[in-house]
Amino acid sequence: MAANKPLLRVLNGEALSTTPVWLMRQAGRYLTEYKQTRLKARSFLDLCYNPKLAAEVTLQPIRRFHFDAAIIFSDILVVPDAFGQKVDFESGEGPRLQPIIGADDLKALRETIDLDHLSPVFEAIQLVKQALPAKTALIGFCGAPWTVASYMIAGRGTPDQAPARLFAYRNPDIFAALIERLIEGSVVYLSRQIEAGADCIQIFDSWAGALAPAEFERWALDPVRRIIAALRIRHPRTKIIAFPRGAGLALAGYAAQTGTDALGLDTSVDPASAAAVIPSNVVLQGNLDPLALIAGGEPLGEAVAKIQAGFRGRPHIFNLGHGILPETPLDNVEALLALLRPEA
Amino acid sequence: MAANKPLLRVLNGEALSTTPVWLMRQAGRYLTEYKQTRLKARSFLDLCYNPKLAAEVTLQPIRRFHFDAAIIFSDILVVPDAFGQKVDFESGEGPRLQPIIGADDLKALRETIDLDHLSPVFEAIQLVKQALPAKTALIGFCGAPWTVASYMIAGRGTPDQAPARLFAYRNPDIFAALIERLIEGSVVYLSRQIEAGADCIQIFDSWAGALAPAEFERWALDPVRRIIAALRIRHPRTKIIAFPRGAGLALAGYAAQTGTDALGLDTSVDPASAAAVIPSNVVLQGNLDPLALIAGGEPLGEAVAKIQAGFRGRPHIFNLGHGILPETPLDNVEALLALLRPEA
Repeated sequence: MAANKPLLRVLNGEALSTTPVWLMRQAGRYLTEYKQTRLKARSFLDLCYNPKLAAEVTLQPIRRFHFDAAIIFSDILVVPDAFGQKVDFESGEGPRLQPIIGADDLKALRETIDLDHLSPVFEAIQLVKQALPAKTALIGFCGAPWTVASYMIAGRGTPDQAPARLFAYRNPDIFAALIERLIEGSVVYLSRQIEAGADCIQIFDSWAGALAPAEFERWALDPVRRIIAALRIRHPRTKIIAFPRGAGLALAGYAAQTGTDALGLDTSVDPASAAAVIPSNVVLQGNLDPLALIAGGEPLGEAVAKIQAGFRGRPHIFNLGHGILPETPLDNVEALLALLRPEA
Repeated sequence: MAANKPLLRVLNGEALSTTPVWLMRQAGRYLTEYKQTRLKARSFLDLCYNPKLAAEVTLQPIRRFHFDAAIIFSDILVVPDAFGQKVDFESGEGPRLQPIIGADDLKALRETIDLDHLSPVFEAIQLVKQALPAKTALIGFCGAPWTVASYMIAGRGTPDQAPARLFAYRNPDIFAALIERLIEGSVVYLSRQIEAGADCIQIFDSWAGALAPAEFERWALDPVRRIIAALRIRHPRTKIIAFPRGAGLALAGYAAQTGTDALGLDTSVDPASAAAVIPSNVVLQGNLDPLALIAGGEPLGEAVAKIQAGFRGRPHIFNLGHGILPETPLDNVEALLALLRPEA
């Protein structure tokens, strides 16, 4: 069955003439139907933890756009929440967590992730799986340990996650212990997503590019390598996409050393340059500028053509280079799909 | 004379056993003496435009730390100011400009840069030049057209300069006209800095990494290539350092195609990887994590050792990978210099 899903065929190494496509944050605020469903939950986290509503918003972009993959609607910060760290989403302000400022704060967290707390995610995956068209893959995900830890330390998003970077320099042992817990928690969390029906996995390391090289290796690359190695043992056939945003010159080494099946490329990466340096057995995903999608028209057409040309002949999953923005016109998403699926 | 300045010897291709060092934003708020001088000017821009005070703050880090280069104290936004766009620095808030939102706003600006308005910068350079030790190089600078334009469009700094990126997609002709003016203005502005006494030039493209690849080529790489080509004709012996922050995989192509003498590397770049892909005739500058300098101690020692090992045998100027932060302890700067100058 899986072999009939274009996304999984590409993840298994096939270069398809019609590139499968999904968009990061495709279930989100650019959709009117999302905004309506959002009103039914008291908070953003309540939406994530309500299996029916989470399944509904996961399916909305599939119904409207027939993307080749659904990604389960959730947030990377359900993991700290499931370790007992208080997480809130203030409207329009982004996430707020009780920051970890020392060893005691780490001790106050659970030793292991509370999978029962995350059971609504697995239920939502089951609901989505039943409802998805046979050709549509279902993606499970988590944040990479470094990115998740950077929010746990700072208590919020910052322009360059400096609080966590500084904390890691000053308290490498405490930070390593936190990363260790996140590695273990991510492995069991992703395993349960796969068991619930996720066809493949994406690991988001949105803040990988903020790290200096040695810290990138230690806190970004190595933890993802270990998560992938552990998942391979439990679920050898499940393909994994890693998205180390901002990795730049380190991309090729990251691909080779993590052993990821596929690499998500951010907006800044030139497709041809990436194709030249990244091992040919690694599938590439990306990387339309979300602002080109907002602009639409000629700039969108040019950007899409360059990406298609850059990845030609190589297994490629079309996506944005970063999440779709709330102000994106729906017509432009339609126009993108018309460019990618001329025969449809 | 120039041949006795270590920084210029390195820029001319010599690999020195004691690497010359300066720090981006070395004249700034981490220095108590800077904060005292700052009080003598009504505003940040008044400080930039007061030759005596600007010279004084330029010299402060040289007196205290004997860096191998002074960089004239100014701001990249004096250029829009000299094109007639209103620029303000609200305290603690960063810059505020009257944003350019259409062709009329561009028409309202001067066709050419007002060099008279910038004469205090040239006067400050002359004052610094007279006061500098013979071994200390003086660096002039400007922002790259893309980075300067991104502030002119948004009217402020943003997390990813999205307003200017979107403007450029939607209004490529207006944006190209703005970039054209900035190229021409930067060439004459930098020429006058060199004529006033700047020994070499750094071009800061702090937001280069925010651009998609085709836009990086058009708005970041090509304008800097043209500025460098024009400066070569006017001042063939003056060396140029380009700092395209976040360029990532595009660094090698940028170095080759702009024809820059030296490349400033941001914090994320692995020295050995950069040395492997960047043409060997390009001098490399960088790239200590400013947060490792705040942390001090063992993390600082490890980070410095890795940078020294990564650039060994290659002409290298030691610097940070981004500007020094206000909370940096002065003792840690002393410790850095002790690591770099063990014989002193």
